Parts: sequence; C-alpha cells; structure tokens
Amino acid sequence: MKVVIVGGVAGGMSAATRLRRLVPDAEIIVLEKGEHVSFANCGLPYYIGGTIEHRSALLLQTPEHLRDRFALDVRVRHEVLAIDRAARTVDVRDHRAGVDYTQEWDHLVLSTGAAPVLPSVPGAERALTLRDVADADVIAEAAARSRTAVVVGAGFIGLEMAENLHTRGLSVALVELSGQVLPPLDPEMAQPVTDHLRAQGVSVNLGSRIQRIDADTVVLDDGSILPADLVIMAIGVRPDSRLADSAGLTTGPGGGVVVNASLRTSDPRIHAVGDLVLKTDAVSGKAGLIPLAGPANRQGRLAADAIAGRAVHDGGSQGTAVIGVLGLTAAVTGWNEKRLRAAGRPHRIVHIHPLAHADYYPGAARLALKLVIDAQNDQILGAQAVGTEGVDKRIDVLATAMAARMRASDLLRLDLAYAPQYGTAKDPVNLLGYVAENLANGTTANIQWHEVEAARAAGATVVDVCTAAEFAAEAIPGAINLPLDGLPHRLGELPPGRLIVHCQVGQRAHSAVCLLRAHGRDAVNLDGGLLTWRAGSRTRGNR
Amino acid sequence: MKVVIVGGVAGGMSAATRLRRLVPDAEIIVLEKGEHVSFANCGLPYYIGGTIEHRSALLLQTPEHLRDRFALDVRVRHEVLAIDRAARTVDVRDHRAGVDYTQEWDHLVLSTGAAPVLPSVPGAERALTLRDVADADVIAEAAARSRTAVVVGAGFIGLEMAENLHTRGLSVALVELSGQVLPPLDPEMAQPVTDHLRAQGVSVNLGSRIQRIDADTVVLDDGSILPADLVIMAIGVRPDSRLADSAGLTTGPGGGVVVNASLRTSDPRIHAVGDLVLKTDAVSGKAGLIPLAGPANRQGRLAADAIAGRAVHDGGSQGTAVIGVLGLTAAVTGWNEKRLRAAGRPHRIVHIHPLAHADYYPGAARLALKLVIDAQNDQILGAQAVGTEGVDKRIDVLATAMAARMRASDLLRLDLAYAPQYGTAKDPVNLLGYVAENLANGTTANIQWHEVEAARAAGATVVDVCTAAEFAAEAIPGAINLPLDGLPHRLGELPPGRLIVHCQVGQRAHSAVCLLRAHGRDAVNLDGGLLTWRAGSRTRGNR
Repeated sequence: MKVVIVGGVAGGMSAATRLRRLVPDAEIIVLEKGEHVSFANCGLPYYIGGTIEHRSALLLQTPEHLRDRFALDVRVRHEVLAIDRAARTVDVRDHRAGVDYTQEWDHLVLSTGAAPVLPSVPGAERALTLRDVADADVIAEAAARSRTAVVVGAGFIGLEMAENLHTRGLSVALVELSGQVLPPLDPEMAQPVTDHLRAQGVSVNLGSRIQRIDADTVVLDDGSILPADLVIMAIGVRPDSRLADSAGLTTGPGGGVVVNASLRTSDPRIHAVGDLVLKTDAVSGKAGLIPLAGPANRQGRLAADAIAGRAVHDGGSQGTAVIGVLGLTAAVTGWNEKRLRAAGRPHRIVHIHPLAHADYYPGAARLALKLVIDAQNDQILGAQAVGTEGVDKRIDVLATAMAARMRASDLLRLDLAYAPQYGTAKDPVNLLGYVAENLANGTTANIQWHEVEAARAAGATVVDVCTAAEFAAEAIPGAINLPLDGLPHRLGELPPGRLIVHCQVGQRAHSAVCLLRAHGRDAVNLDGGLLTWRAGSRTRGNR
Repeated sequence: MKVVIVGGVAGGMSAATRLRRLVPDAEIIVLEKGEHVSFANCGLPYYIGGTIEHRSALLLQTPEHLRDRFALDVRVRHEVLAIDRAARTVDVRDHRAGVDYTQEWDHLVLSTGAAPVLPSVPGAERALTLRDVADADVIAEAAARSRTAVVVGAGFIGLEMAENLHTRGLSVALVELSGQVLPPLDPEMAQPVTDHLRAQGVSVNLGSRIQRIDADTVVLDDGSILPADLVIMAIGVRPDSRLADSAGLTTGPGGGVVVNASLRTSDPRIHAVGDLVLKTDAVSGKAGLIPLAGPANRQGRLAADAIAGRAVHDGGSQGTAVIGVLGLTAAVTGWNEKRLRAAGRPHRIVHIHPLAHADYYPGAARLALKLVIDAQNDQILGAQAVGTEGVDKRIDVLATAMAARMRASDLLRLDLAYAPQYGTAKDPVNLLGYVAENLANGTTANIQWHEVEAARAAGATVVDVCTAAEFAAEAIPGAINLPLDGLPHRLGELPPGRLIVHCQVGQRAHSAVCLLRAHGRDAVNLDGGLLTWRAGSRTRGNR
C-alpha cells in the first residue's frame, strides 16, 4: 500500500504515524511544501513574544528522525501542484532540487490546512500574517525593529499576537470589526478580556474597520490614525483548498472540503483532515469550519484508521478552545447565546461568578461562568468561562458533560475533586447545575442583562437586595434598594408588577426571589447579578 | 412546618439554607453541639500550617448572620441527647445556659458527621485528632511548643497534617499500617507521593504499626522509636451515629445510617446526610462509607428538597478526591485496581505519563495518569493522577465521563480546550482514550508491572526499545535492548516466546508492539513503561 500525505503538520503527521503502526509495511510519503514538518504552530506567538526562547523548541520532528523511527519518507519543500485522480498520481515540485516529478499513490490524504485571510485595503501587502515558522521568523525580526504594532482581528490568534507583542515591549493597538474581542464568546463574557487588555496598556479598538495601511500607520474608517511600525493581520483563516478544488473534490459553499464520517472526500481514495475540511458541528449536526488543533490531530488518526480498513466515525466538534491573555484565561465550548438567539432556538442561560477555590484558602478569585442550555430538553449546548484560575478545568468538564449529552441539571450531581486549594465543596460546575435545575423545575426564573430595558419599559422594577453601602457604591439606574437581610419585614414597600431582583452575583437575589415568589410576586433573578449586568452594559460603550 | 437539624456543618447547613428558600415560612432550628457552625473543616490543616493566617477565615457564618439572612434559629453548644421518635421531640442540653429542654419537630435531619477513630494502644490519650476548630486550636497551640511530630495514618487528613506540620517547621514522621500512602490510590500511583515526601524531609514509615505512645516518642512494633513532641492520630473516621443508634434507626454492619435515595432513614420523618450515612457506591451500587465534603453538601440540599415534598434521587458517589502534598497533587475517582482485583472483576488498566502541557511551552512536567476500565463493556470504573499541574482537571474530566457512563474509548473523541500553556493538542485524557481503544479492539495488549515476574517465569522476555544510552542508565534486570529506531532490521535477534516490550513511558513501545504483532509475534506493552515499573518496584521496598 502506497499512501501519500500532503501536508506534514498536525493532521497529516498524526495520520502518517498512526498508519505506520497499523500497517507496518505501508509505503508512506509525506509531502510538505514548507521547510518544516510537525512544527509547533500553536507555539509561534509565544516564540515571537519570547516566552519560548529557542526557535529549536518549535521544531518537534525532523524528516531524518521520522525516517529512522517510523520509516516515513518525509519530503520538505516538496509542493504538490496537481492531483490526477484517474491515474492516482500527484505532480510534485521539489523546490530544493528544482525538479518536478510524478508520485503514485493508492491512498491520498490531504492536510493542507488553512491560510490567513487578507483584506483588500490599500497597503495590505505590508501586513504580516502568521502561519508557519518562516512567518514567525519574519514577524520576530520585524518586531525587533518596531516600537508600535497594530494587530487586526481580535480572535484567538489576534489576541495571542497582541499579548506577545505587548510582552515584547511594543506599544500595541488591536483593531476588531465586531463590537467585542473573542467572537466565539458572548459580548458580556468577552468584556473582562477587553477591560484587562486596556488595563495592561493595549489599545482595543472595537467596531473598527481599517481603511488603509500607510508606511508607519494604520488608518481606521473613522479617520483615527494608529502608529504601526508593524501590522499583523489576523482576521481569520480560509481552508487552503486550491489543490482539492482543482482536482474537482466537493467543497462547501463557504470553502472547506466535504468529507464523510470516515474523513473520505467525494473521491473514496482521497481522505482529507484538519483545517482544510468541513467538520460536523456538535450542536447543529451541520457542516462548518472549525479550525482547531485538537480536531485536526484526531482526524489525522481517524483517517489512518479508515485507510487501514477500520470502521471509523468522526463525531462532531464542539469548538472547545482556550486562550491566555496577559494572566487572564478565557475558554469556550459549544454554541454561545448570540448564535442561539440568531437561530431562534429556545434556550436558557445561567451566569454565575463563583470563587475558583475556597474563599478561606489564600488567592481565591472569582470566575465568570456561563452555561447555555436547550430549553426544550435541558441539554447543555455550550459554556464560557473567564478568570485567572481553573477556567480550563471547568470548560473541559462542561465540554465532557456536553459530549455525553448530560442534562444541565445533572451537573449538580457530578462528583468532582475538592480540596480548598483546588475548588469549592460545591464546585462551580455543581453550582451551574443547582441553578439549571432551579430554572428547569420552575423554582426560580431569570432575566438576562440585555432584557432589562425592555422589561422596565413594560413596567418592571429593578430591586437591588445588596446592602445599603453596596447600593450607594454602585447601582443600576432606577433600581430600588431593599437589602436581603430584613426583606421579609419590608415586602409591603415593593411596588406592584414584575420585580427584577439582583445582588452582586445572584446568590442573595436567589433567596429573595424564592421569598417573593412564595408571597405570590412575579419575581425574576437578574442572571449573574450586578457583575454580569455591568459587563454587559460596558459592551455598549464599545463603539 | 418545624424542622430540626442536628449538626450545623456542611450537610446540615446546606439543608437549612436550601429549605429556607423552598419553604419560606418553615421554622428551622439548627442544633450544633460545638462552638461553631459552617466552619471550614477542610481548611483546618492549613490554618495549623499557617497557610491560612487568620482563624476568623475558618468561620464562614455566625448564628446571628444566619438568623438575619435566612431566618434560621441556630443554637451552638446545644447538644442533642436523645430522639423521641413517637413524640417527635429531641432532648437538648444547652451547654451555655446549663439547662436541658425538649424540642419538638415535624421533620428531623441528622448531620452529625463522623468522628476520628482512636486506636487502643498505650498512651493513645496523648494523641490529638482533628475534627473541628477547637481541635485545630489545640493542635496549633501544641505545634507551637513542639519540634517533632508523628502523624499516624497516611490518608488524606494524615498527609495534609504531615504537610502542614512540616511547613510549620516541625520534623515530621508519618506512620502508616498499609504498604503505601493514600490508600484510595494504587501503590504504584501513591509511590511518587511517598518519594516526594521523603525528598522533602518527611520520614515515611509504611507497613508500620504503633506499639505505644510514650511521653515524647512513638514506639513502632519493630521496636523503632520516633521522636514525637506531638502525636496526631488520623487513621480514619467512623460515623458519629450514637444518636441514630439510640433512636433505633437502621445502621449498616460497619456503621453508618442507612438512608434511601431521598436521604430518608428507616423513620420516614427523619432524614440523614453526610459522613453519618451510608452512600451508594457508583461502581458497585452497594452502600459504603464515603466521608467527603462534596457529597455531604449535595445531600444536605437534597434532604431539604425531599422535606419540601420534591421528588429526589441521590445518585451514587464515586469518591472523587484530591490532595496537595508539598507541591505535588494526587487525585482519584471511582475504583482502583487493587479493589477490582480483590473483587475478581474483569478489568483493563492504562498507565500513561503525558506532559500536562505542550513540551515546547516552558514549565511542562509529566503527569502520571491511570485509567481503570471494565473489560466487559469498556466503561470507565476509575482513574488516578499524580503530578504538579493539571491533575485536578484531568480527574474532574474523567469523573464526569465516568458519571456519564462513557466508554473509555470515547475519551479519544472528547473536544477539550487546548492552548500550549494549558494542555496538549492530544490532551492526556484523549491519549487515555487512544490507548483504551487500542486495547478494546485488539490493536495492542498490555501487561502490568506486577505481572512481569510471573510472565518471565513462564518464558517471556523483556525487550527494552529505548536507546542504548537510556538502557545503560537504567534497565529492568534481565531485559534485552533493541532500540525502536532500527528495530525492523533486527527482528531476527529476538528470542522466541512472548515479548514484554517497554520504553520510558510506553509510546515507543507501542510502535514496537504494533510492528512485532504485524510480524506474528506475541508482543505486549509493559503498561506505563519503565516509569510505572520503577514506581511499582519501589513499592516493594516499603516494608
């Protein structure tokens, strides 16, 4: 069996090594256009920032090592120019030797990844993008000569670049078209990241479009001019499907090669994996682009299984992701609220702000945690978390619960590891389950920060059950204050109509709502309390 | 409705506050024998060690605050002497006022916890135990006067006490009857904790029984004498069921009040929760003692739900737990291997030693991770982890997968959050799934460290596929060395019969086993490689 793999990073190399183990006598040829295979693509920003000191750390494997250990024929700087499906060959250009040749195959695996998208604005040719080690070299060299940088795009790569250029000592401005950083999160969950970036001295320009890139500035559409010795473009990636397209393989309308659950393309002898392909969205069951390293590696292994003749079923992808931003961590899995609202899909939302570990053990800090629930069957559709500690843990637990199709209420029963330096006896994930169950069985009801205005217009009153001192320090405009302690004796002071009850995070408000509902009042909890309302309100300050 | 709750910590207080929210007009009386309610019992060792500086941090609630906020009638130093089930009353002694009285109830909740077990050895009356704040005060005061300490029992509390007394500057000796620390773990997983304690200067005496406690020493049964200004007894706890017993409530043969899934005792008007009760083991479905804070808190809430008339179903407990020991973290969920072996239940075992985050990002360290699988249906029965980073995260993910009754092979498909500072593109949990699937479908087979001797006696050969330099540095006695690189050309050098293949952690051995099996050899992977074998072998050095 002769297998040719096009692309020697993540998915491609996972396929190659797995196939070697399953089919010891297979001839496996890896053709990589670039200089390196198996490089640490997720580490590139940290090499540019200096956290990863040595460039050699990025190079995880050499062709020589892969030959000795796995008997792989790895050819770098070999570019595949075309696929002949009928003849089962590829045309290859060996950039080292300067010769072209034809390579036969029995099975072909495409793992050509995704390439950064460049906008068509004047001066865009000066902008740098980050995809491989050579790009990182160029950016690191340019950063060494620069004092100012503009990073366009505030997704994962954009934020990692902004962080690392800032860490290197550059004055960094971030420009993002949408009204928030980290579009996979909802705006009120992303807001603490924006606030943190600004507090650390990064200029964050939201709702901003670049008009042109000049010699040492970037001009925005509102006319503002950002100094930019260096411009990084990180507005997104697009599947690098030229080869697949020219071979006539089926692709989706927005790009991306169509594969079945065995990672087969429309040609059963050709598999495709990773950022190049359309993945199945775990929530909708529909195909979409989810360019992440984890699924790419998994798909590479599964493609090898399929070629080796095994029954394979690639499940859906939840798009679970995490990012560190100057000491803050943000993570997400599944769908967010804005996507569900846009889809018109009935849902429930829970925001909580628990401590990441026991308050009495030093260093405890609050997490912002959000759960997105299917209102029809209580299933978990997604989750988001932001904080300084334990963020990745909670999202991984929630991603696992979601994959297992647990109900949100089941989270209260999870038996999680507790000691005071690691968590709380009622873990934040358990607390999400407590609230979810209270919502599911009607013990309480909540309202979201963005629904308050309309509710007030319809006659509702915001009741702040914090202490008078807290109320004096910060209050939602128009709210009245009745502290929880003593509330049973003051029910007569409440106006008629719907009551939107809140405290700082929602816990005292929960007690108040239970009390009020027992007294026949239409009371709802302002989900996530003042903290979520404040973060949500601040998103409106982002132009 | 008049509800009396006996015991105002963890389960009892969770029941009280939940009940207040569900039944705003209930009369709720909490009777606590001790001085404090809602204290941070899991924080006590860290107060003794000085990590928690202020004693006030341990006191989470006061009776006054609980009255103002939750309208709870909390009476500390009120001891319940007897229950009259027919009259629905309890006899109470008010130690403050020095008077006895009778208290009526409609529902009674028992949350009297568990008390430390004391061995009947001469001098045991000098040993101190840790259960409440008063105990912590006594130990902290004694530690201030001490230079040496002996801690008897190397379970969670024993290790936390050893750590904290060591942190305080005492010279600490740990004495444990069994051959390992942390009995919930398997011996080879606990061994790194023993090694770490010893490296930090704690004397660890395993397989040791204390013979007597003298004025300033502890004498072991082998005659050795340990200096001991201070003696802490932490050999276990026993349900504090005197009250339940005297009231004739049904208890299990080994102690512990019997409750149904609604937390009802044999008297339907009396509920019991927490360390006092027998919990349902999630693996066996049988009742057992699982004295942990998480389940206690959850049960308190559920008991309140039941009293409020809700349908309640307390699921099983997996005994998930975590401990920090001088910078090392160890965690466990579900059953361990030794328990399954003792029960004769067919199982598969996976040991891996992955990096907790990407190797190219600074600070990456290896985890030891163990998965225990039901051989009949591939379900996860338990997991253990030890390391310096990401231990609690992986055990929480595995505990969640176990609760969801996922198959071990499903772990490879989990979509977990990856960035190089938080994990690896193939997360350690995914890697467990890869190995589990390979075992489940017969791609490979493994053998455990404790099975090697018998296999060799039956004619098997140990083949080390590490490099010659690694082999020269450390080798399993009698092993032969054939490095993986070049192995395909040296198959003729292998002796006949079964081959037990290993490398450092099992990854290279996996490639070798696949190759050898493809060539018709009976090859198995020494699970967890040299690292697990070494840890296992070292357990035999523990007397």
